[in-house]
Amino acid sequence: MIDGHGLCVQLDALARISSQADGLTRLVMSAEHRKANDLVATWMRAAGMRVHEDAIGNIIGRYEGLQPEAPALIVGSHLDSVRHAGRYDGPLGVLAAIAGVAALHQRGEKLAHAIEVIGFCDEEGTRFGATMLGSRAVAGSFDDAALALRDDEGISLAEAMQRFGLDPEALASAARRPGDCLGYLELHIEQGPVLEALGLPCAAVTAINGATRLAVTLTGTAGHAGTVPMAGRHDALCAAAACVLAVEDAALAAGLVATVGRLELRNGAINVIPGEVHFTIDLRAPQDDLRHRTLASLEAQMRHLCERRGVGLKVSKLHELAATPCAPHMIAAIDRACTGLGLEPHHLASGAGHDGMAMAALCPIGMIFLRCKGGISHHPDESITPEDACLGASLLLEVMRAPGLTSVNAASHKF
Amino acid sequence: MIDGHGLCVQLDALARISSQADGLTRLVMSAEHRKANDLVATWMRAAGMRVHEDAIGNIIGRYEGLQPEAPALIVGSHLDSVRHAGRYDGPLGVLAAIAGVAALHQRGEKLAHAIEVIGFCDEEGTRFGATMLGSRAVAGSFDDAALALRDDEGISLAEAMQRFGLDPEALASAARRPGDCLGYLELHIEQGPVLEALGLPCAAVTAINGATRLAVTLTGTAGHAGTVPMAGRHDALCAAAACVLAVEDAALAAGLVATVGRLELRNGAINVIPGEVHFTIDLRAPQDDLRHRTLASLEAQMRHLCERRGVGLKVSKLHELAATPCAPHMIAAIDRACTGLGLEPHHLASGAGHDGMAMAALCPIGMIFLRCKGGISHHPDESITPEDACLGASLLLEVMRAPGLTSVNAASHKF
Repeated sequence: MIDGHGLCVQLDALARISSQADGLTRLVMSAEHRKANDLVATWMRAAGMRVHEDAIGNIIGRYEGLQPEAPALIVGSHLDSVRHAGRYDGPLGVLAAIAGVAALHQRGEKLAHAIEVIGFCDEEGTRFGATMLGSRAVAGSFDDAALALRDDEGISLAEAMQRFGLDPEALASAARRPGDCLGYLELHIEQGPVLEALGLPCAAVTAINGATRLAVTLTGTAGHAGTVPMAGRHDALCAAAACVLAVEDAALAAGLVATVGRLELRNGAINVIPGEVHFTIDLRAPQDDLRHRTLASLEAQMRHLCERRGVGLKVSKLHELAATPCAPHMIAAIDRACTGLGLEPHHLASGAGHDGMAMAALCPIGMIFLRCKGGISHHPDESITPEDACLGASLLLEVMRAPGLTSVNAASHKF
Repeated sequence: MIDGHGLCVQLDALARISSQADGLTRLVMSAEHRKANDLVATWMRAAGMRVHEDAIGNIIGRYEGLQPEAPALIVGSHLDSVRHAGRYDGPLGVLAAIAGVAALHQRGEKLAHAIEVIGFCDEEGTRFGATMLGSRAVAGSFDDAALALRDDEGISLAEAMQRFGLDPEALASAARRPGDCLGYLELHIEQGPVLEALGLPCAAVTAINGATRLAVTLTGTAGHAGTVPMAGRHDALCAAAACVLAVEDAALAAGLVATVGRLELRNGAINVIPGEVHFTIDLRAPQDDLRHRTLASLEAQMRHLCERRGVGLKVSKLHELAATPCAPHMIAAIDRACTGLGLEPHHLASGAGHDGMAMAALCPIGMIFLRCKGGISHHPDESITPEDACLGASLLLEVMRAPGLTSVNAASHKF
């Protein structure tokens, strides 16, 4: 049995470790990172785990299985935050995992596999720009170039690690061997409104969406808003408006999400026909081929729209990340655990990035989403109910206990 | 006969009076204003005119008719400029009028009416924000509140007038009596591409368009670009895009011009669904009822578009100016003069504002547009051919001589 009250008390206690009073801010290699690791370590020990901090500053607790040195199911999430954040994005997954182990420990239950709970030191990338520093180190995909990245005060990651008491030279020791890892499992708030709208507390994640980000420049002809007839115009903003609606239509038709989040006019003035417009496109899909096909047809359509208007179109790629599918046997284990707890199984793709994207290079991954109020995240208004927190942790525990997870040999995972 | 070469030499000489070397900048009550007035005064005197500077700093030359103290046809334009301007917007109309009077003077021709050439001191409003200071003073519609307006250096118009040698207390003396003014006639570059596209050098202006400027705020719901499904979004930018296209469609359907010249996202970010967008609408039409009808149906349509998307719409009026029709007998006189010179008469509405808007409060107005290269104005690339300059001045002269202008009693003009 999960101690739901205890879990909520711990979530609140961890939320008080913040560099600012108004909203939670907890950055990697900071004094708050140290305090959070120390506090989480005490809870891990109380739950019967052996605790150590690895070479990148992840806090790790291990609960042995029936056989010592058995391969481990890694369960966790991240302890860092964006600035002015909420208290559940990250910590929920770490503390719910500890609550599950505590329940096992209390009733003296040992599993066929070990459980390792990891509180990753950095997923958000708030301080140094690069994301998933903690999980990349564990997965062995950490790019050493990140050590030279500097924060707003000019401190490099390597310097910050040393001040934190870590040795950048020893970073490779954080990487785990695939054979030691059965899989990676994470409970996380949905950060979207779907579960709330459906009236469901939980869902299994099918994939972490792949994403492409584009920068688009439209070049028309500036002119006097009073003297140039409509028929002779090459209005870059009218062309951009047609493109924005084309992005929306393409996403609706393909069943994915796409957003124009920035749009700027160059030299915009109330009485001047816009001559140049810049905007961005963020497009995400659970399957890479769907994303690629949608982008190709969208770009062709934008080209057609702009040609008709005599407006120049330039598209450049800012960023591209492949989709990360969750392992079918992990999804199936989550579905079975849902049914076991009397919950309706449901599947969702994750639109946001998570540590599982890095961990998938090491082992099969599975994720559980928990509904959150209004789909709000990255904001102090982020909220879940105590009942849902307890239910999410109970579901996580049942998946941790699932015999199905150990039946798939870790060696069968393709790297 | 117009001295076309002399006119072009004068246009170039006047263009050298600028506060910056790169592009023309000549502001009201500046050292350049003083130099320009003095230079124009010498040309007026050489053309047989009596010259004075009025209480707002307009430079005025009078060429008497057959009877002394006869009512005058006022012919002119403005001598000030925007920053980084071209050399024809304004000066062409003043110097062409002087060239016309010079031609009359040279051949000893006196008309039934007097001619007064005015070089207005301010039409653009570049220095103090308020436009048409010169023509408003002449028309008797100068708002004394403008005396308190300050330029970028904190100097008020009243202070600037005193430094220029003018007495703000005497401003009312610049106003002319309606009975003394037969009409106001102006030659100006088109500032648009229509005449060039039609292969015509000149056109009679039918009206100076009325204009309405609106500020629009759309309020949707910000959200995570990855986690909020398309169907549940209230994207303020998608709503704005639909509105921008509705503005364009409404203008095309009504045969007027409308422009969204500014559009800004509040807190725009590449991975955030836009929650708030601000944009402007500038809509102009030669008839006020057409403008009002189009605006009403456009606003209803935008409201419908936003309601469908669950996006809030707020529209506020920034500025409204009624259309100024040109007098039918002035248009007819311009048409007859075109025919007399072997030019095809053509009619155009003016999308830009002009001194005629103020002068219409005093007397009937007429305007001639001259084609300019690429429709470019308010930029150093502003260009006309010497042949067109000469043709425009010749046409202006023929209209100045037209007996039709004096047959309409100034008293019949409604104020």
